[in-house]
Amino acid sequence: MARIVMKFGGTSVANVDRIKNVARKVKAEVDAGNEVGVVVSAMSGVTNELEGYVRETARLFDLREYDVVVAAGEQITSGLLAIALQEIGVSARSWLGWQVPVKTDDAHGSARIQEIPGEEIVRRMGEGQVAVFAGFQGIAPDGRITTLGRGGSDTSAVAMAAALEAERCDIYTDVDGIYTTDPRIVAKARKLDRITYEEMLELASQGAKVLQTRAVEMAMKHRVRVQVLSSFEDTPGTLVVDEDEIVEQEVVSGIAYSRDEAKVTLTQVPDKPGVAAAIFGPLADDHINVDMIVQNVSADGSTDLTFTVSKNDLDRAVKLLEEHRDEFGYGEIRADKNVVKVSVIGVGMRSHTGVAQKMFSALADKGINIQVISTSEIKVSVLIAEEYTELALRSLHSTYGLDAE
Amino acid sequence: MARIVMKFGGTSVANVDRIKNVARKVKAEVDAGNEVGVVVSAMSGVTNELEGYVRETARLFDLREYDVVVAAGEQITSGLLAIALQEIGVSARSWLGWQVPVKTDDAHGSARIQEIPGEEIVRRMGEGQVAVFAGFQGIAPDGRITTLGRGGSDTSAVAMAAALEAERCDIYTDVDGIYTTDPRIVAKARKLDRITYEEMLELASQGAKVLQTRAVEMAMKHRVRVQVLSSFEDTPGTLVVDEDEIVEQEVVSGIAYSRDEAKVTLTQVPDKPGVAAAIFGPLADDHINVDMIVQNVSADGSTDLTFTVSKNDLDRAVKLLEEHRDEFGYGEIRADKNVVKVSVIGVGMRSHTGVAQKMFSALADKGINIQVISTSEIKVSVLIAEEYTELALRSLHSTYGLDAE
Repeated sequence: MARIVMKFGGTSVANVDRIKNVARKVKAEVDAGNEVGVVVSAMSGVTNELEGYVRETARLFDLREYDVVVAAGEQITSGLLAIALQEIGVSARSWLGWQVPVKTDDAHGSARIQEIPGEEIVRRMGEGQVAVFAGFQGIAPDGRITTLGRGGSDTSAVAMAAALEAERCDIYTDVDGIYTTDPRIVAKARKLDRITYEEMLELASQGAKVLQTRAVEMAMKHRVRVQVLSSFEDTPGTLVVDEDEIVEQEVVSGIAYSRDEAKVTLTQVPDKPGVAAAIFGPLADDHINVDMIVQNVSADGSTDLTFTVSKNDLDRAVKLLEEHRDEFGYGEIRADKNVVKVSVIGVGMRSHTGVAQKMFSALADKGINIQVISTSEIKVSVLIAEEYTELALRSLHSTYGLDAE
Repeated sequence: MARIVMKFGGTSVANVDRIKNVARKVKAEVDAGNEVGVVVSAMSGVTNELEGYVRETARLFDLREYDVVVAAGEQITSGLLAIALQEIGVSARSWLGWQVPVKTDDAHGSARIQEIPGEEIVRRMGEGQVAVFAGFQGIAPDGRITTLGRGGSDTSAVAMAAALEAERCDIYTDVDGIYTTDPRIVAKARKLDRITYEEMLELASQGAKVLQTRAVEMAMKHRVRVQVLSSFEDTPGTLVVDEDEIVEQEVVSGIAYSRDEAKVTLTQVPDKPGVAAAIFGPLADDHINVDMIVQNVSADGSTDLTFTVSKNDLDRAVKLLEEHRDEFGYGEIRADKNVVKVSVIGVGMRSHTGVAQKMFSALADKGINIQVISTSEIKVSVLIAEEYTELALRSLHSTYGLDAE
């Protein structure tokens, strides 16, 4: 017997039949003696439809009114799920963002949660009433509806689990857990029973699009145990937890990759103080995110500078650098979209040496050239030519002993 | 320069183009120097779609959750209209029922408005901001969403006009005003410039389905001047006002009819005290509304009793009367669906005699037999055979001098 929060995304509540299916899953937890809160997204397609109306009405629009329009989607699902639960004999009521209230700042369209008073809801859950929350929405200090931005329902769920001091936050989705790497590429990929917040954050930002980064950050901050599992299968998923909860930690937990990288090299950059700032300043001003950066040792007072940006930003980045060419005085710009970033992730790296060296050897054995390297405390990333993606993933997966038996 | 409330129904906001059209109509009033509040319905079809989801989820459902689901419809329109107004340079913001707040009782699904604090909104309107209200919705004493029942947006609009002390409440609809009678039947029907609340109430309950009866009652109670006009044409409509505002009052303002009547006759009813109560008690208990009632003079200690009920209720009424036959001890039941009620309406009747006599003569001249008569202070109604509907309407329209030149 525990207090838990369950979260169902748009495809899990896409129509009335699926909402009834969700109601049955909730009932199973209630029947098992749990106190349950449920966070729901809009029925799939509804948010896009409502956004479409807004964009048809005006090209530039008031985000406060946008929030009023799109928040209706989750409102509808919350009422329907409450009815579906009552229909199968489960006491339930819906809670809209402003009713809880989910207090946010006033950054309409991408608001951040500030406070959720949970006492009244905890009291009702104790009396056996399931609380059905409209996800993705909150209320600004001035009493207007806010939304948390795309994927905000995950964040709603984790925040609610923290406010209700829930033992677990179960995120139901269309995959059944977190894998050691992409199973579509590596057939021997294994589902992980557990993974740490830090590893999940690296995986999420590296392209494993299962959980929103913001939701993982919030879970880590409030120590909310998150489970990722399938709404369509009845198998346990992957628990995202604190490092302490993982008894036998592997050195490497997973291999991630991201095809959304483009490489830019500036040749013959003058090797003097302030040049890096001068180059990256204009990019930052234009909200272009720079990821990996390497600078070669100086030869004859100049150097080569290589960095990566998102593929979408490449053209804008090159244009900006050309506009500022006279200020930097570099030789030429070389841009390359034909790259992929492969990352080896594991909190065990903190206490084990040789992880990076093992990676470089494995790639060298396959004749794969490493173009850029970057490392963090729990991650080693390399940039390689895109055509080697599959070969690199399979080789590394095997090298670190992650292959399923 | 005045403060006005404009109300647009579902067909007037059926899609984004029509919402933009509404925005232009609102802008015209703002440009004319008026302070404007707008009440909107859901886009046509949306309420039915949402109701459909609810009924698909459960046959019997919690009306509190029903309200959560269907109130989303008006919420969407209010946000979109605010955006459409801003897009053409008009300052505007949306107001949901709970934000105003429109305080209602807790009769979910058909709540009644109790109080609307209008100060803050009046202040903003004074600063030039158009207030766009989601119609049809309010908030119960316990903070949950309520809806006012079908057609409740008219009531929202009149209540808002009263709360804001507006000079006028303009109800935009798909007809361009109130006519002396149904123009589809009588080609010479005229649009009325003005009509009194009392007459409008009689017309509304008699089958002129332009304005909700509840909205007219509320307008009368709070002395809100209501204008009915077309959202698709730029012509003045009909003003529904207090009798004092009508300088030259016609004796008869309009001729209404209702095909929704069925006649029931009980023969040889014992003529003794308590019999009428015994007969109509069971009907009232079963929520069957009895309209016209006539009882002939007694002959040999028994009498005939004739009354009308709604056509939908006829079978249930007959069944109930048969079940209670032994208690009443009547001769036989005769039921007739082939009837229509025709009513002559006008506040001028209060000070003019001979109105009813004129009606009876006109019908007699055409050989139309009158089956039942009932009268009120401002109305004379007769029940006749349904096939005479058109003949009776045209004849009466002409008799009372209502024909257009």
